[in-house]
Formats: sequence, C-alpha cells, structure tokens
Amino acid sequence: MLDFEMIEKAARQLHGVAHRTPVLTSRTLDELSGATVYLKAENFQRIGAFKFRGAYNVISRLDADELRHGVAAYSSGNHAQAVALAASMAGTQATILMPEDAPAAKIAATRGYGASVEFYDRYTGDRVALGNRLAAERGLTLVPPYEHAGIMAGQGTAALELIRETGSLDALLVPIGGGGLMAGSATAAKHLKPDIRMVGVEPTAGDDTKRSLAAGKRVRIPVPKTIADGQGAEIPGEMTFAVNQRLVDSVEVVSDQEIIDAMVFAFDRLKIVLEPSGASALAAVMNGRGFDAGARVGVILSGGNVGVERFRELTANIPGQNAGHEGENP
Amino acid sequence: MLDFEMIEKAARQLHGVAHRTPVLTSRTLDELSGATVYLKAENFQRIGAFKFRGAYNVISRLDADELRHGVAAYSSGNHAQAVALAASMAGTQATILMPEDAPAAKIAATRGYGASVEFYDRYTGDRVALGNRLAAERGLTLVPPYEHAGIMAGQGTAALELIRETGSLDALLVPIGGGGLMAGSATAAKHLKPDIRMVGVEPTAGDDTKRSLAAGKRVRIPVPKTIADGQGAEIPGEMTFAVNQRLVDSVEVVSDQEIIDAMVFAFDRLKIVLEPSGASALAAVMNGRGFDAGARVGVILSGGNVGVERFRELTANIPGQNAGHEGENP
Repeated sequence: MLDFEMIEKAARQLHGVAHRTPVLTSRTLDELSGATVYLKAENFQRIGAFKFRGAYNVISRLDADELRHGVAAYSSGNHAQAVALAASMAGTQATILMPEDAPAAKIAATRGYGASVEFYDRYTGDRVALGNRLAAERGLTLVPPYEHAGIMAGQGTAALELIRETGSLDALLVPIGGGGLMAGSATAAKHLKPDIRMVGVEPTAGDDTKRSLAAGKRVRIPVPKTIADGQGAEIPGEMTFAVNQRLVDSVEVVSDQEIIDAMVFAFDRLKIVLEPSGASALAAVMNGRGFDAGARVGVILSGGNVGVERFRELTANIPGQNAGHEGENP
Repeated sequence: MLDFEMIEKAARQLHGVAHRTPVLTSRTLDELSGATVYLKAENFQRIGAFKFRGAYNVISRLDADELRHGVAAYSSGNHAQAVALAASMAGTQATILMPEDAPAAKIAATRGYGASVEFYDRYTGDRVALGNRLAAERGLTLVPPYEHAGIMAGQGTAALELIRETGSLDALLVPIGGGGLMAGSATAAKHLKPDIRMVGVEPTAGDDTKRSLAAGKRVRIPVPKTIADGQGAEIPGEMTFAVNQRLVDSVEVVSDQEIIDAMVFAFDRLKIVLEPSGASALAAVMNGRGFDAGARVGVILSGGNVGVERFRELTANIPGQNAGHEGENP
C-alpha cells in the first residue's frame, strides 16, 4: 500500500537521475488569480512529463532476473517514452504496445529511446488484455501506467519537491487522468500538512473521478472527447481511486477552451510549452477554481509534449491573443 | 568607457530585481552539436528579454532631479517595455516613442507597465532625432537601446551569471543587433578568460557587424529583411562597435529558416518559447558554427516575446517536425 515513506524512498531513487524541475512564479498569474501561485514545471522533466518518475522508480528496482527478461507497457503517450527511457537506463529491453494508428513521431520517439514497438488494432483490441498476454507469454514485467504502488510513489515525488521548496501550501491542484499523479501527490502533501486542500482537475468531458467521488464508487463514463488526451480515462484506477477517495477534497473541471487559454498564457507570459493535460490545473487556477482568495496555491504542470503541429491546430482560432512583442536590437 | 567593474556593479544593482535566469542543458543538443552547450535563458527575464538588465541599470541610478522629470525612449520592441517597467520600479514616468503602426498588443503591453506612449510616422520620421528632440524639449532623460555604457554593462550581467554558474567556457555565442548585448558579454567574458572565443551571431540579411569587422570600420547595409526583428540594425552602434571590434573573434550568420528550426527545436525539445532573435545563437550552435568539436559552449537565448500568432505564422510550413507526443493519463 502507498505511504509517505515509499515516496521518500522514490525521491532517493530518482535523485540525480530525474530532473529536479523548476518552480515557476508569475506576477501576472498572481494578480489574475488573487493567490500566490507556485507552478511545478514537469514539462521540463525527462521525456517532457512527470511519467518518467514513476517508470524509473519501478524499473530501476527490478531484480537481475526481471531485468534480463525485460519490461512491457501499453501506451501511445508519455508513459511509453518513460518506460522506454527508464528501461534503457536500467540496462533492460522495453517492449511497448502501441495502436497501429499512433502518430509516426511518437513511434519514432519511443524507438529512439531504444524500445521495441509492437502494434495492435485499437478498434478491436483491448490493450490491457493484450499487454498482460504479451508480458505473460514472454516473461516480461508489465509496467502499468498508474495501477502500481511504485508508480504512484514515483509520481508523488514532484509534489514532495514542490512543497519542500515552497514551504507550506494552502491548496495543491493536480490533473487527474488515471489518478496516479494525484494519488502520489496527495499522499505526499497530506502527510506534510494534513489540512492542505487537495484539488483534482479534470476536463469537463472526462470527469470520471469527479463523478466517482460523488457516487462514492468508481463510475464509468463514455469515452471522453477532450483535447486533454492525457486525461481521457473512462474510469478511475482501482488502486488510485482507493487513495484519492480518502485524500482528495474536491475535483474541479475545466473546458477545452479554458485549457487552450492556459496553454496560450503559458506560451505568452511564462514562455513555456504545455500540452493540454499539462495546462488543465493552470486553467483551473486562472479561473479561480479550487482555492480561496489570498491562498498559497501549488499547481502541477504535468507535461509539455504537444508538438508544434498540434499546438498550431489547437490555437488556430485565437486571433488577438498575441500579447508578445518582438525584440529590439540586442 | 565600459569595463568589467561596471558590469560587476550592474550585477549588484540588479541583484534581487532582475531574475537570475536559468541555465538550460539538453542531451539532444549536445549530441547534435558535438559540444557541451549551456543555454542562458533570458526569455525568462523580466519583460521576456535581456533588455530589462540594461534599462534598469541606467534608470535606477538616475538622480532625484532626473527621476522627477522622467525618461524617454524610442522603440517598438523589448526596449520599450524594459524602459517602461524599469521607470515604474524607479518611481519615474516613461514616455515611449513608437511607430504609428506598431501592433496594438505591443502598445498595450508598454502602457501596461505604466508608460505614456506617443507616436511617429516611421516612413517620414527619424526616430533617433525625434526621440532626442522630445527628450530635450521636455527635459526627459533619453535611455538609448545600446549606445550607453550603463546599458552595455547591464546587458553584460547575463554572461557574467552564465560563466559564474558553468565555470570556464571555450566559446560564447551571442546574438548581435545594435551590439549592446555583445559588448557587455564580451567585456565580462574576456575579463574572466582572455582566450574565450567570442562569437557574434547575425541573420544572413542583417550582417552589418560581420561586414563592419571585415572592413575594419562601421559599414551601413540596406534595411535587413529578416524575421529576426531584434537584429535588424543597418549599422553597428559607434560605442558598441568600438568594444566589439576589440573583443569579438568572429561573427557567424544564420538563415531565417535555420532560426525557425531553432525555435521549433526549443519548443519541441526544450519546452521553451524563443522569439527569432532569441533563437539565432541557438541556430548557430545547431549548425556547428562558431566552436570546435568537444568544446564547452555558452549561448545567450536573448528573448521569448514572439506571441502565439506570430509563432504560428513563422511555423506555418513545417509539417512533420512534430517530435512531441501527447500525454498519458496522469
């Protein structure tokens, strides 16, 4: 079971391996939100997202026999690259199951970290079942994206770093997809300050955790249509929900347009790149959700893997938002 | 005359006021360039560019009488906002002369820092003469963009911070427009290590300093057509050129396409936003110009004020460059 000690152990395991990502602040954001906001910039983490923390924490602890056989994962996103890189660093082979129609750039990036990529038809195949079968048949260790105490513990190290750097916070806003980042973050934060307000953020169309908390049990929703593809879970994880049901105070939702506005704000004002899921908690803060006026608020910016083409698509309809100002002779 | 002591004094003046911007590294960039590269990220400086350093260094030292009368500047870019913000912090009033057709967003941003904006017709007016007249008539102190020892000294503090953080460097690549950033950087760097290679970077169409160094005197070129609008000077500054002629070892040029590729690399791999002038020295490094294999290379990323709309225009023709990869359930 996940506890604070596991997160501290994960932090030691990740020391000098994961990036200690910066904590950003913005006067403009503080004025806009009426709070003092600390942004933990996991878009600067290795592979461009927090996912490296959990994957490395698990894979680097495998025993010699497991490492000799190799690891497996199913993912078309950041977890794929996290497992690929962590496996390469641990000297083992990763096999990643990806949908046949995954973008070529993502397949190339995953292979670039040394992983072997195999494909399935996502319209007919169940990736969890396929992943389990592949791992069982070949004797590989399956590294799940969130249903694993070691994964949750690794993800929790971002919040631990944030709070140790900023000191006491009144609220911490964390994006929720499968729930692993929140489970780790809440376990770390509530241990350090039991009355901190833990606020999950979901896209409006992907509010499975919000509904599940309201219902008191895991609720399945239709496949969410949202630009926040890292937050497209249909149902919370079993392990993650057990933790989050106990520790999360509330869940706020943000619209896709609010997420895009947050990505543009990050670009124009913070000069950083965020993917939609990475901007959702920022969107909540910008719209005053999840904290009281004057509060000290932490926010996890979970990742920045959006790519120029996708960023261009998402921002195609925002003329006049350009608050930038080109340079002067240096 | 500019010397190292002035830069150290400027660093003390800016301490706790300017941001101490981060030094970024990238394994991918090191592999690409065959060097060990340290990127000084002035896009994270106040107002989004290094220009704040020089403006604050000058304005904060004005005497009570000068502060009571106010300051003036002519600029449509980063210097305008730098002067506006520095004036506001020093408790004085800034009057900024901008072209009538300056983008509304830039005018708004400058006014947002509390400056009063006045306009001139850039097809018929000489901004330098107009700025001087405006300052003389109203008793304002003119803050020039680079022809001023205090401005050059302030700009040099970025290189000073970089070298103090990274230790000895073999080469330092700095974008050149009017030459103020380079004059300050070279004065700082050559004092700390006389054999460091100081490399200027200009857009191919704006190579006035390269030509001037070759000619041994300041050469005027036609108005440069380049996306690097912060590097569009037609002739080097008189004061800046006197310094740069003594201390700059070479100037490399980069094409507009190479600058765009560097902006895309910064977006996709570094997760940061750079304006064209801010990416030109990175473009030189990515193309192997200005240093030897295996060198320790410093690079000034001078600013990030490009805006989403302009970024979209500049990257309209780069399909397939998307190396990003959207998220996984957090």
